[in-house]
Amino acid sequence: MHAGSPKSPGRTKNGLGLETDDWMDISVPISDGMVTWPGDPPVRILRLTDIEDGDDCTLSALSMSVHTATHMDAPSHFTSLRHGIDKMPLSAVVGNARVIEIDDPVSITAGELRGHKIKKGERILLKTRNSRERWDRKPFDESYVFLSTEAALYLVDRDVLTIGVDYLSIGGYGGNMAEVHKIILSAKIWVIEGLDLSRTGPGLYEMVCLPIKIDNCDGAPARALLRPV
Amino acid sequence: MHAGSPKSPGRTKNGLGLETDDWMDISVPISDGMVTWPGDPPVRILRLTDIEDGDDCTLSALSMSVHTATHMDAPSHFTSLRHGIDKMPLSAVVGNARVIEIDDPVSITAGELRGHKIKKGERILLKTRNSRERWDRKPFDESYVFLSTEAALYLVDRDVLTIGVDYLSIGGYGGNMAEVHKIILSAKIWVIEGLDLSRTGPGLYEMVCLPIKIDNCDGAPARALLRPV
Repeated sequence: MHAGSPKSPGRTKNGLGLETDDWMDISVPISDGMVTWPGDPPVRILRLTDIEDGDDCTLSALSMSVHTATHMDAPSHFTSLRHGIDKMPLSAVVGNARVIEIDDPVSITAGELRGHKIKKGERILLKTRNSRERWDRKPFDESYVFLSTEAALYLVDRDVLTIGVDYLSIGGYGGNMAEVHKIILSAKIWVIEGLDLSRTGPGLYEMVCLPIKIDNCDGAPARALLRPV
Repeated sequence: MHAGSPKSPGRTKNGLGLETDDWMDISVPISDGMVTWPGDPPVRILRLTDIEDGDDCTLSALSMSVHTATHMDAPSHFTSLRHGIDKMPLSAVVGNARVIEIDDPVSITAGELRGHKIKKGERILLKTRNSRERWDRKPFDESYVFLSTEAALYLVDRDVLTIGVDYLSIGGYGGNMAEVHKIILSAKIWVIEGLDLSRTGPGLYEMVCLPIKIDNCDGAPARALLRPV
C-alpha cells in the first residue's frame, strides 16, 4: 500500500500528515537477558501468568535499568540539574531530525562533524560503524564508536536540541563516558541512546521519539520512529 | 508561540508536519507505588546511585507489570493468538483518532456508542467519568467506567482499528474484565489503557501512541500524544 491509496490517506489529504506507511522503527527490541551497560541490572521479563499454562491471561513484569535498549537520558543523569525525563519538552523529540553518517571507525570527531554544517536547534542522529551489526543481540562491545570530548563541546557550541547515537552511551567505555555526558547534559541537550540505525541512510527525516514518562527519573526507555522528508 | 511562527515551522512549511506546539501529552506519569491493577506487582523505581549522595551519576532501575499506567495490550494478553506488542503495526497508533465523550456514569454502552456513527478502521478513544479526576494519583477504584460486553461486540462489528480507555482496563472489575478483553483482542483490535483524557475534549485529533518494544510481550507501557486536527 502506498501513501495516497484509499486505505492510506497520505500526508496532505484533509491536511493530515501522520497516516503514511513509510515510518521506520529505529528502536531495538527489549528482551530478557539482552546486552546492558556493564554493571547495570539485567533485563528481566518475567511471565507471571500464562494462558498456555491454563491461566486466564498472560501477564508479564519488566525489570531493568532505565538506561536499557533504546532510551533517553535526562540532565539529572550526570548533572545536578533536577530536570527529569518527565520534564522533557516534546519539541526535543517530535520534528525534523538529520541522520549524519560518521566514517571514523573509532570515535565521532569534531573535525568530521564540522563538515556537516550543523545548525542551531537541529536534532542530530549519528550513524556509525556500530550500526553495521545488530549490536543489541550481541555481548557488550567495549570498542563501540563514541563521541569524542571535542565533538561534544562542538555540539554544545552549535546549540543542537537533541542528539542520538547507535550504541548504549554517548561517551566512550573506560574513557570519556562521564565527561561527555556532563558536557552534553549540562547544556540541556536531550540524548537518545541505543538506536538501531542499521537500515537508515543519511539525510533529513521526520522523527517521533517517545520515552515513557517516568516521574522525576534520570532516563527512560523510548520508542523511536523516522520517516523520510 | 504559534504554529507558523519562525521557531515553529507549522504543519505545512516544506511539507513537514510535526513541529507544532499543540501536542498534548495524554499519558499518566509512572511513579513509585502508584495505583496498579489489584494483585499486579507494584511499581518500583529504585535509585541505584545518586549524584546527591556523591556518586558519579544518578541511575535508576524500573520494576513493574507491563500493564501499568498508560499502556497497551497485545492480543496475546487474553487470547491464544501469538501476536506480542512488538508485532503491532505502527498504523494502529500513528494517525487520526477520535475522542468520544461518554455520558453514562457506569459503563460504556452499545446504545451510547451507536449515536456516534463509528466507522471501519477508526481509532477511538473513550473519555468517561474516569477522566474527571487524576485517577493515577488515587487508590484503585473498583467502580471505574468500563466497556459493556455489548459495546465490545459493537466495536468489533464496526471493525475499529484501535480503542483507548481512561482507566486501567477495558473490562469491568469483578465483572466482564476477561470477557471484554477476549472479545476485543480476538478481533485484533489494539488496546490502549490508562489514558489521561482529563484535558481533552471530544473531537478529531492526530495521535501518536508508542509502546516500548518489548519482545514477544503481552503488553507494554506507552507514551501517547494528541493534537487537534
